[in-house]
Order: sequence, then C-alpha cells, then structure tokens
Amino acid sequence: MNWADRTWSELPSDLAKSSHVAILPIGATEQHGPHLGTGMDFVLADKLCRAVAAQTGVPMLPTLPYGCSLGHSRRWPGTIALQPITLITVIKEIGDWAYHSGVRRLFIVNSHVTNAAPLRCALEMLRAEHDDMMVAVINTATISERVRLAHFSDAQDWHANAAETALMLAEAPEIVRTELIPASDDPDRTEGLVFSHPVNRTSLNGVTGTPSLARVEQGRELFAWMVKDLSALVERGKSEEAPLDQSYFERAGE
Amino acid sequence: MNWADRTWSELPSDLAKSSHVAILPIGATEQHGPHLGTGMDFVLADKLCRAVAAQTGVPMLPTLPYGCSLGHSRRWPGTIALQPITLITVIKEIGDWAYHSGVRRLFIVNSHVTNAAPLRCALEMLRAEHDDMMVAVINTATISERVRLAHFSDAQDWHANAAETALMLAEAPEIVRTELIPASDDPDRTEGLVFSHPVNRTSLNGVTGTPSLARVEQGRELFAWMVKDLSALVERGKSEEAPLDQSYFERAGE
Amino acid sequence: MNWADRTWSELPSDLAKSSHVAILPIGATEQHGPHLGTGMDFVLADKLCRAVAAQTGVPMLPTLPYGCSLGHSRRWPGTIALQPITLITVIKEIGDWAYHSGVRRLFIVNSHVTNAAPLRCALEMLRAEHDDMMVAVINTATISERVRLAHFSDAQDWHANAAETALMLAEAPEIVRTELIPASDDPDRTEGLVFSHPVNRTSLNGVTGTPSLARVEQGRELFAWMVKDLSALVERGKSEEAPLDQSYFERAGE
Amino acid sequence: MNWADRTWSELPSDLAKSSHVAILPIGATEQHGPHLGTGMDFVLADKLCRAVAAQTGVPMLPTLPYGCSLGHSRRWPGTIALQPITLITVIKEIGDWAYHSGVRRLFIVNSHVTNAAPLRCALEMLRAEHDDMMVAVINTATISERVRLAHFSDAQDWHANAAETALMLAEAPEIVRTELIPASDDPDRTEGLVFSHPVNRTSLNGVTGTPSLARVEQGRELFAWMVKDLSALVERGKSEEAPLDQSYFERAGE
Amino acid sequence: MNWADRTWSELPSDLAKSSHVAILPIGATEQHGPHLGTGMDFVLADKLCRAVAAQTGVPMLPTLPYGCSLGHSRRWPGTIALQPITLITVIKEIGDWAYHSGVRRLFIVNSHVTNAAPLRCALEMLRAEHDDMMVAVINTATISERVRLAHFSDAQDWHANAAETALMLAEAPEIVRTELIPASDDPDRTEGLVFSHPVNRTSLNGVTGTPSLARVEQGRELFAWMVKDLSALVERGKSEEAPLDQSYFERAGE
Amino acid sequence: MNWADRTWSELPSDLAKSSHVAILPIGATEQHGPHLGTGMDFVLADKLCRAVAAQTGVPMLPTLPYGCSLGHSRRWPGTIALQPITLITVIKEIGDWAYHSGVRRLFIVNSHVTNAAPLRCALEMLRAEHDDMMVAVINTATISERVRLAHFSDAQDWHANAAETALMLAEAPEIVRTELIPASDDPDRTEGLVFSHPVNRTSLNGVTGTPSLARVEQGRELFAWMVKDLSALVERGKSEEAPLDQSYFERAGE
Repeated sequence: MNWADRTWSELPSDLAKSSHVAILPIGATEQHGPHLGTGMDFVLADKLCRAVAAQTGVPMLPTLPYGCSLGHSRRWPGTIALQPITLITVIKEIGDWAYHSGVRRLFIVNSHVTNAAPLRCALEMLRAEHDDMMVAVINTATISERVRLAHFSDAQDWHANAAETALMLAEAPEIVRTELIPASDDPDRTEGLVFSHPVNRTSLNGVTGTPSLARVEQGRELFAWMVKDLSALVERGKSEEAPLDQSYFERAGE
Repeated sequence: MNWADRTWSELPSDLAKSSHVAILPIGATEQHGPHLGTGMDFVLADKLCRAVAAQTGVPMLPTLPYGCSLGHSRRWPGTIALQPITLITVIKEIGDWAYHSGVRRLFIVNSHVTNAAPLRCALEMLRAEHDDMMVAVINTATISERVRLAHFSDAQDWHANAAETALMLAEAPEIVRTELIPASDDPDRTEGLVFSHPVNRTSLNGVTGTPSLARVEQGRELFAWMVKDLSALVERGKSEEAPLDQSYFERAGE
Repeated sequence: MNWADRTWSELPSDLAKSSHVAILPIGATEQHGPHLGTGMDFVLADKLCRAVAAQTGVPMLPTLPYGCSLGHSRRWPGTIALQPITLITVIKEIGDWAYHSGVRRLFIVNSHVTNAAPLRCALEMLRAEHDDMMVAVINTATISERVRLAHFSDAQDWHANAAETALMLAEAPEIVRTELIPASDDPDRTEGLVFSHPVNRTSLNGVTGTPSLARVEQGRELFAWMVKDLSALVERGKSEEAPLDQSYFERAGE
Repeated sequence: MNWADRTWSELPSDLAKSSHVAILPIGATEQHGPHLGTGMDFVLADKLCRAVAAQTGVPMLPTLPYGCSLGHSRRWPGTIALQPITLITVIKEIGDWAYHSGVRRLFIVNSHVTNAAPLRCALEMLRAEHDDMMVAVINTATISERVRLAHFSDAQDWHANAAETALMLAEAPEIVRTELIPASDDPDRTEGLVFSHPVNRTSLNGVTGTPSLARVEQGRELFAWMVKDLSALVERGKSEEAPLDQSYFERAGE
Repeated sequence: MNWADRTWSELPSDLAKSSHVAILPIGATEQHGPHLGTGMDFVLADKLCRAVAAQTGVPMLPTLPYGCSLGHSRRWPGTIALQPITLITVIKEIGDWAYHSGVRRLFIVNSHVTNAAPLRCALEMLRAEHDDMMVAVINTATISERVRLAHFSDAQDWHANAAETALMLAEAPEIVRTELIPASDDPDRTEGLVFSHPVNRTSLNGVTGTPSLARVEQGRELFAWMVKDLSALVERGKSEEAPLDQSYFERAGE
Repeated sequence: MNWADRTWSELPSDLAKSSHVAILPIGATEQHGPHLGTGMDFVLADKLCRAVAAQTGVPMLPTLPYGCSLGHSRRWPGTIALQPITLITVIKEIGDWAYHSGVRRLFIVNSHVTNAAPLRCALEMLRAEHDDMMVAVINTATISERVRLAHFSDAQDWHANAAETALMLAEAPEIVRTELIPASDDPDRTEGLVFSHPVNRTSLNGVTGTPSLARVEQGRELFAWMVKDLSALVERGKSEEAPLDQSYFERAGE
C-alpha cells in the first residue's frame, strides 16, 4: 500500500466504488516572514492530508495551493492571492464535480486562516444545491484542543509563529531559512483592537509570534497530533448521519 | 436631540463634517420557528444600532434587512435569502460609497450568524481597496462575554431560542406569537457533529433551543447590555489607531 | 389587528396560507438637497407600503433601503449606491425566494426614479424563469394621474422638490430641516436636452424643483392619494388573470 | 460621398479627427408574428442609423443585432436573446472602448422596447465612469411626437404592428411575407393590466396590433420622419453642453 | 430564391421546420492599418456566411460585429472590443437560445484570430450543457489548406495583410483606401518570439504583412475558395454523426 | 542547491531581487482511461516545471492542479473541472499578484489541451492591463517539434495515449496501473469531423491512442527532451525584448 492509492489519482473503476468520501486540502501562497517560504500553508495542508488519507483510506483531492490573502496586503513580495469571490467559485465548482463523481461527504481541510470565510460561503452553496451532500470546513489550527493550544501559545493573531515554524522544521525543512529564525520574532499587536487591520498595519515583517521558540521535536509532535486528530474526525465523519432526515426543499406543515 | 439625527438621514452639510465613522446594521429575513416573525434578525440589528447611534453619536446607515440564509433551507416559507456572493457585493458597494462619502471607520453590525462569512469577505475586499479605511464586523451575539453567555445558554447552535425570544418580547412584541412559545422548543442536535448540516437536518421547526424559557425582563436586560457593550466598542473604535503605519502597497526591505 | 400582521414578519404557518401575493418596497439612500435627509426615498416607500399592506391585507416584504444612485454622482456626501447589475441580482434573488416561499404575484413598489431600469431588468428575469409568477414594477410617482401631476408640477426632472418635501413634512418631519427649505430651490435645467446628464451637471445642490412651495397639508393629501391609488392597484392585481394561458416554453404551431 | 464614409469603418487617421461623436444602433433578433422576419428590429435600427449618419456626418458604429427578448418568451422559434445583465455589460464595454477611441458624445439608438431598461443601466455606468462623456438612449418609436403617434395608433403594447409592418414593406420588403399579413392581426389585450405579462400571455401569434392596416407609402413616410427627426436630435446633440460644469467626483460645499 | 430566405430573418413557421442547423458569423471592429476600415473582419464574416447560407440552405444568424481585440491594444483609434469573458457569455447565450429554438448543429464562423479562444470556451460550455447539440468553431483563414496558404503567404502573424486587403478590394471596396495601400506594408516581427506581445509592440501601424501585394482578382478567387470550402464543410456537418452515442452524463462501467 | 530554492517558496528578500521572471504550471484533474490516475496532467506539469526551474533558475509558482475538463464530460468518475470563465479569472488574479510581486515575464506552462483557450483569454487580459508584463502560454505537448511528434504519433486527438503513458511510467509510476495498459487502447475516431464532439462521443474509455505502445525508456527520453526544450524557451524568454517599444495606450499619429 502506498500514498498514491489514497489520492484522487486512483483509477476510475476503483474510484467509482470508494469515493463517496473525499478530502480537499487548501492552503495559500503567502509571505511568511523572513524565515519561511511562501508555500508554508499549502505544503502543510498537503502533507497533513496525505498522511490522513493514508491513515483513513479516504481519497485526497489535489491540494489547492492558492487562497485568499488580501489581508496580508501587497507590502511583501511573494504573496499570490485569489479574490474571496473567486475562491468561493473555485471551491463550489470543485465540490460540484466531486458530487457528480460520487462524493457525498466532503472534508475541506484549510490551513490558511483567511480562507475560512470564503470556504464557509462555498459550503453554504454546496449544501444548498446538493441536498444529500455533507460538507465540513476544518481549519488545521483548530482540529482539536491540543492542536489549538499549540498554535495560539505565542500569539492570538499568530502567523509564521513558533507552531508554524516548528511544523516546517519538522516536515518541510527545505522551506525554512533557519539562520533567519532568531531575528524574525514580532509581537502580536492586535490585542483589544476593534477593527480588523491588515497585516501591514500589525506586523513589521509578516510574522506575528515568536518563531525563535520553534523546536523541531515539537513540530514533529504537533504534526503527529494533527494527523491523529484529523484522522479521528474523518473517521467519525465517514459514518455520521444528519440528525434529521428532512429534505432541503420539501415544505413543513403544509 | 432625537434618533433621526443619529442616522445617515442627516443633512449632507452636517454629514460632511461628522461622518468619518458609520455603523451599518445587517440582519436577515428568515423563518424563526412558529413563534417569531421572519424579521427577527433585522429588527434586532435595527433597534440595537439605533440605540447605539443615539448613545455614541455615530451615524447609522440604513439597515439591510436581507442576509444569507441558505443554510436555513427552503423547508419553511418566509425565508428570503441572498446568495453569499451577492451579499458580499452589496456590502462591498455600500462600503465603497460610504468611503467616498467620507467614512474611514465602518462598523458592520450583524445579527444573523450565517452572514458572518460573507461579511468577512466584504471586509477583506474593502480594507484591501481602501488603504485608509478601518472596518469591523461585529456579531451581535458575541459583542461581549455576558452577551455571549446569554445567547448560548440553551443551545450551542441556537436559533429563535430563549435569548432571541426574550429580546423580541422586550423590544418587538409585535412579531412574537406568545401563545405559540410553549410548544416551540426544539433541542440542539448538533453536538459533536463533524459536518455542517443545514437547519432542515437539525431542527424540526426552525428553532434550536428553549424559547419557553424566555422572559421579557431578561430580554430587556440583555438588550441593555448589548446597547451598552456595543456602544463601548464603538467608542473605542472612534479613536483606535492601527498599531503600525505601513501602507498596504509600499514595499518592505527594498 | 395591526400593521405588523401585514408585514412578512408574520408567523410561517399563516404565511403559508396567505402569501401568494406580496409587496416589495424599494427606495434609495441618496442626497436630497440641503433640506431633506438621505433616507427620503426608502422612508417614503416603507411608509406607503405599510399603509397599503394594512389596507389590502397583502404582506409587505422588508423595504430595501439601497438603490441605484449612480446618476446622482459622488458630488455630495451621503449617497450610498448599488451598481445596476448588483441591484438586478438582489431583486432577482429576493423574487426567487419569494416564489419558493409561495408568492405568485409580486408588486415591486419603487420610490426612486433611477431604480426603474434595473427593476425592469429583474422583472424580465423573474417572469422568464417562473412561468406562473406575475410581477409588476410600480413607481410611486406615477401610481395614478393625480399623483403624477402632483410630482411633476414644479419640474420634469424633479428631485427633492415640492412634492417630495411636502410628503416628508407630512409623514417624516424628522428628516426635514425646515429652516433650510426656503433657500433650497433649484430650477430644472434639463428641458430639451438630448443627453442624460448626471445630477452634478444639472443641479447646484441636488434639488430640482421648488421645495419652498411645499406645504404639509398637501403632503398629507398626496400621501393619502398614494395609499388609496396604490391600494386600488394592488386590489386589482390580486385577482388579475393573464389575458392568455400559453406557457412561456411550449411551442406554438408545431 | 457614400455611406461607408459615415460608418465607423473609416480609416483611423480620419477617425481620430472626427469621432468625438458616434451613433450606436441596437436592435433584436426576435419573432415578429407570422409575417415579419426575426431581424425586423435590427434591420430597422441599421437602416435608420445609416441614413442619419449620412445626413449628419456622425459615424455609425456597427449595429448590434441581438437584444434582450426575454419577455417575448420561448414560445415561438426564432428569438435569440441576451440576458439583461449581459446586454448591459456589452454596451458598457462598447462605450468604454468608444470613449478610449475619442468619442465623448454617444447616441445609443434602440429599436427594441425591452432593450430600454438594460441600455439605461449601461448609460448610468458609462456616465458615472467617464465624467466627460455624454450618453443618450433614444428609442426609435419615440424619436418625436409624430413618430410616436404612428407607432401607437393600433396598440399601446404594439409589436409587429401596422407601423412596423409598413416600415418593413417600405425599407426591407425581403423580410416581409405579404401574403400572411391579412391573417396576422392580434388585438392588444394589455389595457388596464397591473402586471407585466410576457408576450406568450398576451398575444396568440407574437403580434400586438393590426398589421393588415400597413401600407407601403405610410412606411416610406414614417421612415422619412424618423430619419429627419433623429437627425435633428443628433444635430442638437453635437453642440449640446451640460447645463452646469461640476465634476462628478469633486465635493460641494466643503 | 434569395439570400434573405437563407438568413434567420425567415418566418417562424418555416424556421420551425428547417432550423436544426445554423451558422453564426462573428467578426470584430478593429483598426486594420491605415488602408482598411475597422469593419474588415465582420464585413468578411457577414459576406462569406451569406454566400454559404445561400449555397447550403443553412440559415445564417445575424453577424456579431464586435469581438475580442484586447491584443490589438488601444494605441490606434477605431477598435471597439469586448472582454473575453463577455464574448464567451454572449456566444453562450446566443447558442442557448438557438438550441431552444430548435438548432442542434451550430457552425460558429469566425474571421478574427483573437476570438478563437473565447469562442472555444463558449463551445465547451454549450456542448457540456446541451448533450445533443453539436458545435463547431471554424476560423475563416483556415477553412482549408489553400485558404490557409493564401492568408499566411506574407506573414505568420498576418493582419490587414495582402490576403485581407485583396478580399476587401474584391468584396467590400468601400472600406478600402486604395491610395494608402502602397505605404501600409509592415513586416512580421514575431518570428521566434517566446512571448505573445500585443500588436502595439509588434507593428508600427496595425498592419503585419504586405498589403501592397494585394490584387483584386486574387481577392475574388480567394473569396470564391472560402465560399466553396466552407460550404463543403457545412454540407458535411449537416449529416455528420458523433462517432459514439454515449451520453455526457451517464456513467461508464458502473 | 536544491529544487526548493527554485520554487516560489523562497524567502521574500531573495524573491524581491530575482522574481522578475516566473513559471506557472497548470494541469488538470481528469479521468485518463483505465490505466492512468486522474492526476496525470498536473503531475506532469509539476515535475516538468520543477526540472526546468532547477535548470534555469527561474522560480516556479505552485502548480494549479485543476483545469477546464468540460469536454471530457461527466461520463467517467474522477474528473474535477473548473468552468472556463472561472479558470480565466483564477489565472488573471494569479498573474496580477505575480505582477505586483515584481514579475514582468510570466511563462504559463500548460499540460492539458482544453486549458489552452481559457489560458489564452487570461493572457489577453493580463497583457492588456499590465503594459510592461510579458506573458507566454506554452503547451507541453508542443514545446518543440520532436516533442510534438512524440505526442501525436498514435493519434491526432490523443489522450492518455502512448506518450502520456510512457511519461508516467518514467516519471510517476505510482499513478500507472501497468496491468491495465494492454487493454486500454482506443482508436482516434475524430478524423475529418467538422464538429468538436465531447470525449464521451469519441472514446469508449477516455483513452484516444495506443497506450500499449508505451515504453518506459521512451518516456524517460521524452521527458528529458521536454525539460531541455522548455528550458531553452525559458532561457530565450529571459532576455527577449518586444520588437517595438510602443505603449499599449499612447496614441499613434495624433
């Protein structure tokens, strides 16, 4: 058994039998401070979902490497963003075709915070159009309580922080410039703010948090937690039934 | 002094002097169980923001009474929804014109949970386009901790529940059918679910929670909290400055 | 019995029985000279339709307070406009959901001249999609001959003129600055023009007409006419049948 | 001198000198009863504007032969329609490029009633974007009072009626089946209607009016009036100035 | 029998019998050097398809005179372009209505190179939506090998070249300024280029090729070839069957 | 030196210095017969561009794994497609952000035939908006003459054929089911066809060509050619200058 059998790249005949469930990873291409590559988010989503697919036997659709990064601003080179409406449309169309390909349970696994809102919009559209399709948007940083704590330990508005840096040190060292880590810390300046300021107004270098605290072993452990806890969610989702069996369209009490 | 002076309906010459800040209320037109009118959400947003406008002197833009209700399904008559992309576009255009009218600080006050994602998308677009515009999306149920606790007391996935019913009993009794309240309770069936099921799959009558627990005095107190706590947020927002003063577009380190 | 029972905010079970007909009011948020608030149009649409709903028993959908005001230009603060295409989409979606909620006769009541074209576009789309839905766009200034004459008495291209000012004096005095009325007159400069110039090229202050002629009693009478004549239209519409019973799609002579 | 010199098909160098003014004809491809070809509307717009271009020396842009015919329904073969939003976009883009090509005065000449609303929307967008561009939408049936009377003589909701049939007999006999004219009359059934019913609900054969009254000489006279009266409008438009010289964007009273 | 009977402008009753096949000509309005009118492309498409319609008896839809000319740039006045997405939408809607009018075989005949990509996109959408509709996009310059050779004889990236000039000299002399032909030659500068540069970067005057080589007799012969070879294609298309009879939607091997 | 340094995932400070040129790979997720995984196209684009990036030092943007596969139909599970208009928008936005990130020369490398038209549309939009940006769309099967011959050797309308199968055997054996290759041949049935039939009408199993002829050594050689020939194109592109230096917008001869 190898990972390839767990991606969407399987042969059609098998797919037709097994693809009622699928995982769609999505990340972003976004500046992540001086010390991390712009691919951090999609690399994480990709690696995590491959591992979960191998664990659960649920096919993983190809990872979408572009997300909504408007909030990171154009201040730093390297960010390549989609408009929110474009991202919604892309995910809606991927979901539609997955549905027509047989998928009835779709896990959208998102590693980039600002994608959450457009993904939620796409979820609304998908479940409204396909009455028998279940959709979940799962954000990687909040898969479980222990994962959440690890991400928020050095900043509420974290970005390219200790957790992300540790994850990359452990799982994708090729996109880390370790020599730049010590000088990359930048504090969270958003506490108590009423407005949602873009990153150019809150961070000097695109980092929010303390990457200098990152340790490769912690990254390894955190990644293992993420794989385990997301696999558990997917397993539960495989057999979850909706609480009630009422059609989206049929009328009540008439 | 009366409320009219605190809405956008002021005369232009005054507006030109004072409208650097504005509040945009948005609700929804959505079935709210057997006992509440479909206008519950926008009526709440409208009444709350009027009171806050009077309190803070910040003009209130006209309340948008239509929101994104796809998740409530078409199972019950009365719901009138906009697509997420349409709602994003509407808010973006309202924000653009408010900007060109002089507004540099915009509080979007939202009383309908499913609006949150499209509103966040609009916020992203507005702040990316107008480098000197600050935008906040504030959801009425989480204005403050005490307000949050009051809303979530009888259900996590609450809708037309004790809090909402109490608020309407206190502030808009004309859209409550009190005689139907006792028979309207419907439990939260979403605990531990992995997927986001639409309301037709989670509620028998459009309610999630225990409206039978609603008391008019509690509604009055809750509304007072909401006015006070939102006014405090708006007051803070009036003078908030972004932590840093870096342009969205200018390049760092070049 | 009170007006609230005549709005869409009724309980669903009743709606299901009675909502085959509905009224959708739409106005605008637009500068209206020095003496009127920007809410003039939607306030009028709202008050008029509430009264007509009470008179006719036809539920009134929530008033849309934003319209298409591109032609008024950005010269004066206070205007908040939607693009024509956005307005078309919004009305189309409201109409679609009203249809799915049971509405088969929809009266779109419009108080803002420049909305007429986008609303007509939406009407085309709605009737083309829903073969058994009847739609009317009724402009408040031309409900009947006497209403029309009252509006056009001081200007062909009237805006914030005697009629509008009188209506507000009578029905919404809180958005009138009476002390500014005498100095607000501005003549109609559009007679015989071939091109459609925006308001910034035709009016010095956003007014076209003679608001100084406005009298509160005339406003009261005009409003009464509008309620009566629109109610009569709605009553006729309740039982109107299309002249022929041919499907939109079936083929003739084949 | 020939017509070719009066169309947009001139050489660029000349265009650059003379194209500050342009005429854009638009029609439709729509069933016109049993006796007229589907091209009636665009053929009329094309012939009329060619003649006016020759008369006035104002270049005529290529005629757009597709319009918005949703209201004519799909009941009869032959109709080819654009959605209103598509038509708006097409005209907006044509206008934008005309502007960038030097045109500052654009006459949109429309021969198809249902195009009027989308064209108005496009006009709003064009004049809002290009502060120094003047745009007119002129409907061929109401160019002047005598032209209007001729069109409305046999029906208020006229279509493929005496006037249109006479015009085609005179100017484009190749798309008239004269032998079918006598049996093509169909009365106007829309008098006093509140709703805007599509043509499948108001006409048995796509005609509204009395084509049997059409006479070729009247068509010839009517066409001559249209050429003369539209030429007069265009001549006036050539030198028309906006009443005031205030920018769309600059702020008043600040 | 005359051409008018071969256009879409026929009477509906006949159309209903014969319109299973249709030709849709599309050109562009684009600067074509100093010596040709901007209408060159649509004039050619129109004349060619009229002749082919007369030859084959297949009705010709009205010619769309606007295309996608973004690549020609705004450097020269006279070009009026649609955005690619707008052109796709227009063709999709024309095709949809043609389908609903009975057309099952649609020949889109295109005389403007840059239209090819948007037209292909529209073809994809049409055949995906209408399982029993056959669509072809035929570019006039490559109808057949001899036609292709004639067009590419003086330039690979030809525009307003010998072939086009000859065609206009023969078929539409009114849009040729013959006295300017000798000075209009401009060489093809694109050989071996990796990037697709817009015309403003490759031509001094909008010409690519050697119009001075154009001879009227060659234009006449080339046009005759085009009519004959396109007619042959259309004739073959009339009876062509898809190689296999599998539905777009039904599933294989399940 | 390793590949990571040649992807967009580099650190921003370096990017700012070196990213004037970039490669954007795009593939598709599409059924590829019984013997190849659905990821064939994007896997090829990804591997090819990584190799070329390493060779040329030009950073490679993240590979877009979803393309336009409408023409492959919904007959076989596994295909996940974007609408042409969505794909155009996605590429346009990626190109815009790349431009704002400093990229002035963009190589879009496409391995999926049906993407060619939408990509061309995006190219038109990008070069029209950014006067100083050069864009190329390079289709992998026609990088050079020898590469083209290899792809078209067993079919004109090839898909999942000998060349593609050989490439995967050599470069991505994990997505090949070798035991199914012998029974996967399906002949090209499109010769001489006038219409563009979707794949469900031309292939029995999604293959067009003779995968049974595929040999791993040929795949290895073909891939090496593709790397070498594409690298040569990219090298040439690095220093290519547009033939002329005329602005897109400035006017000629005025």
